[in-house]
Amino acid sequence: MLYEKILDISKRRGIVYPSFEIYGGVSGFYDYGPVGKRIKQDIEDIIREYYVIGENCFEVECPVLSPESVWIASGHVKNFSDVLTECSKCGEPYRADHLIEEHTKTSCAGLNSDELYKLIEKNKIRCPKCNGGLEMTYPYNLMFQTYVGAGKDKITAYLRPETAQMTYLPFRRLYEIGRKHLPLGVLQIGHSFRNEISPRQGMIRLREFNQAEIQFFVDPDNKKSANFDKVSEIRAKILTKNNEEFEISLGEAVEKNIIKIQMIAYFLGISLRLFEDIGINKNLLKLRQHKDDERAFYSTDTWDIEFMSSIGRIELVGISDRTDYDLSAHMKLSRQNMMVNYNERNFVPHVIEIAYGIDRPIYCILESTYTEEKDRMYFKFPKRIAPYRIAVFPLVNKNNIPEKAIGIFETVKKNRIYAIYDDSGSIGKRYARADEIGIPECITVDYQSLEDSTVTIRDRDTKNQVRVKVEGILGRLI
Amino acid sequence: MLYEKILDISKRRGIVYPSFEIYGGVSGFYDYGPVGKRIKQDIEDIIREYYVIGENCFEVECPVLSPESVWIASGHVKNFSDVLTECSKCGEPYRADHLIEEHTKTSCAGLNSDELYKLIEKNKIRCPKCNGGLEMTYPYNLMFQTYVGAGKDKITAYLRPETAQMTYLPFRRLYEIGRKHLPLGVLQIGHSFRNEISPRQGMIRLREFNQAEIQFFVDPDNKKSANFDKVSEIRAKILTKNNEEFEISLGEAVEKNIIKIQMIAYFLGISLRLFEDIGINKNLLKLRQHKDDERAFYSTDTWDIEFMSSIGRIELVGISDRTDYDLSAHMKLSRQNMMVNYNERNFVPHVIEIAYGIDRPIYCILESTYTEEKDRMYFKFPKRIAPYRIAVFPLVNKNNIPEKAIGIFETVKKNRIYAIYDDSGSIGKRYARADEIGIPECITVDYQSLEDSTVTIRDRDTKNQVRVKVEGILGRLI
Repeated sequence: MLYEKILDISKRRGIVYPSFEIYGGVSGFYDYGPVGKRIKQDIEDIIREYYVIGENCFEVECPVLSPESVWIASGHVKNFSDVLTECSKCGEPYRADHLIEEHTKTSCAGLNSDELYKLIEKNKIRCPKCNGGLEMTYPYNLMFQTYVGAGKDKITAYLRPETAQMTYLPFRRLYEIGRKHLPLGVLQIGHSFRNEISPRQGMIRLREFNQAEIQFFVDPDNKKSANFDKVSEIRAKILTKNNEEFEISLGEAVEKNIIKIQMIAYFLGISLRLFEDIGINKNLLKLRQHKDDERAFYSTDTWDIEFMSSIGRIELVGISDRTDYDLSAHMKLSRQNMMVNYNERNFVPHVIEIAYGIDRPIYCILESTYTEEKDRMYFKFPKRIAPYRIAVFPLVNKNNIPEKAIGIFETVKKNRIYAIYDDSGSIGKRYARADEIGIPECITVDYQSLEDSTVTIRDRDTKNQVRVKVEGILGRLI
Repeated sequence: MLYEKILDISKRRGIVYPSFEIYGGVSGFYDYGPVGKRIKQDIEDIIREYYVIGENCFEVECPVLSPESVWIASGHVKNFSDVLTECSKCGEPYRADHLIEEHTKTSCAGLNSDELYKLIEKNKIRCPKCNGGLEMTYPYNLMFQTYVGAGKDKITAYLRPETAQMTYLPFRRLYEIGRKHLPLGVLQIGHSFRNEISPRQGMIRLREFNQAEIQFFVDPDNKKSANFDKVSEIRAKILTKNNEEFEISLGEAVEKNIIKIQMIAYFLGISLRLFEDIGINKNLLKLRQHKDDERAFYSTDTWDIEFMSSIGRIELVGISDRTDYDLSAHMKLSRQNMMVNYNERNFVPHVIEIAYGIDRPIYCILESTYTEEKDRMYFKFPKRIAPYRIAVFPLVNKNNIPEKAIGIFETVKKNRIYAIYDDSGSIGKRYARADEIGIPECITVDYQSLEDSTVTIRDRDTKNQVRVKVEGILGRLI
């Protein structure tokens, strides 16, 4: 219900909506509308502040299209696939593991194509839509493939399934630019692509999605953070790979060897703080360790932060120790040296990765901040991520009141503050519209404003109104 | 020479560099390094300020991958191609028109595949590399093609060659979200893709590139701007489609019907101002009207702003009247209504498009701000686009000076100001390094700082140093 309510208002008010709607849509693709894009931009800026300013990371931006060699080295050409089966009668494609799991209620994690096919035969599973036969299974690579160039220059290329690899390729150059310091942190924000089979769940499982991935290149003998004490007191719900569940402080979790790598614990703490800052309900967050058969092929330990949403758990970030897997693989295939000489030792740096989704956190913000009262609904967005900081209303559209209101609107905008102007319908309706997109405060210019240059400012959450001098507005906003 | 110098320093200091270098690179793909990405981010934010805040535009973000129907309707599947020829001996691919133009020194604009082939035969043109024969020509679509989904759900999709179409698709929804006002302006910033044949020229002709495109949906009877008087005094060099060249004010250009559509003139003026703000040398800019045989298939009038660079003219923005071409085409193919009832008339809105490149302006900024003096070089970036606002140096790495310097560095960062800390080598070397990436000011903490809490601030352009109180630093920066 909450999910449907949020999607309905998202479409209506321009937060997010399905792409290509006029052509019937294609599942797995969503647009950010004017309100959603403003929120997304703010969240990306906050991630930059946390990592580029806060952790002295570099930020880079690399192409989404990249030649096959990158993905051969990374292992994605070989390993990044789901096993598919198709109905021989109606042609409907299914992920074999999902189909079997629905049928048998047991996990198929880690099984290969042949093993899955045997389970389909053994359990006599047929097409759920038309009861047709499922005659074979085959591995289906999730990367979108295309070609670059023509004639003899034509090469196979893929849309990146993650930003991470694009950050590894120029490691050598980045290490030089960073004047050979470790740890070297590099952020990349951008689109990634996975050709999921029949994705459902709206904006939760997308074929084109947004990521903010940070790679910390580290000394393999030093996976610690100098600032761990700043997060060690943070308490969190934890679910280990052995299904043990409890609440504990991050400091204690490291001490008791529950989270073995201190740097992973540090960035779990930083991420919890970041999620709280952008408006996600911290009481619904859980740190979950990946099970051994679930971890990505490149990782030795992975922890997710999950949000317990109304539609089930949603992964917001994955923090992994990718060891030297990627740099060593690229070193081998490209024959370029990825070793560094650091602290008088030679080694290939290890990588601690912090991989944020952008789309899923935005949905979780919407769920966390959605508020219904008996006569209204509003999103209780923190001011930093509200799409507009303020709305300006003229009480009436005459008697110089619009001129005064537009003057205030223009002054606010000149100070680079995102604002809207709304002059249609009753003030009550305008408040309701501003509430629906979570605008923190509304300024109304009325007859008294013309006399004493004051306006009312109405607070979204309390509905309280205060009268303030026009000159005082900017000070409140910045 | 200037081009090579800039590319060299760009690679070395992390502004831009070729992608996938460890695999030999693929022409037409560039990475933004840590310094370039900071500049790019600032430029995008300035574009947002100009359009979202300044012109009350919406901003949206749509997928780069999109189903075939979009590009059938837009005309790109049919029309967005170059004519290709391949050497039958060595397989080298060539753009037929470029090859013929190099050979004959006459324009081939507008000729089709057969016509171009006849010119190759007539002029006996052979492969410039191996002298092999060129036996045929064929149209070659510049869109990257791939497939989405599997089995019976599999559909053809393309990487967008422009952001514009993605903005048109949800026009109906955006019009409702904007409460049915015209003009309705919508900005989209993001990657676009063109599978160019053998692109050369580094970051000027890219296969994956960055755009900031604004679509103004307007009443066909009103292609005027309410604020034209704010730009009418701006003088510019103009080159018309009839090869007439002169300098004139925008107001006069409209009056004399040289620029027929006032809104186009308005955004030419806004763009000139924007380019100056981001550091492009305004004396090297020219407004150039597209010739009739050169205009894109969807446009009735197009004006570019070009920068006269050291390697030839570079297009920075194209402003076009796309009429109702796109909306009507989508209306026809999708059977969704794109008509509006506005001012008591029914019509399909026209579109005035402002299409900025991002990559090319960045190169032009580098050329415009590159400054050599007898003992140093620096980029004279405006403060707003400098990658870091400030650098902080401890004079020596002992005697509590680093602690004091780090304290200042942290305070600056807490105020969301991008800064770097550099403690290696002589102060002179550190100034030189800061100059190379155009940092406007450098703060040095020395022994006197410990006594009276003052620091020196050194200006990039004048090399002047002033002594200021630590408490006064933030006030100077914000």
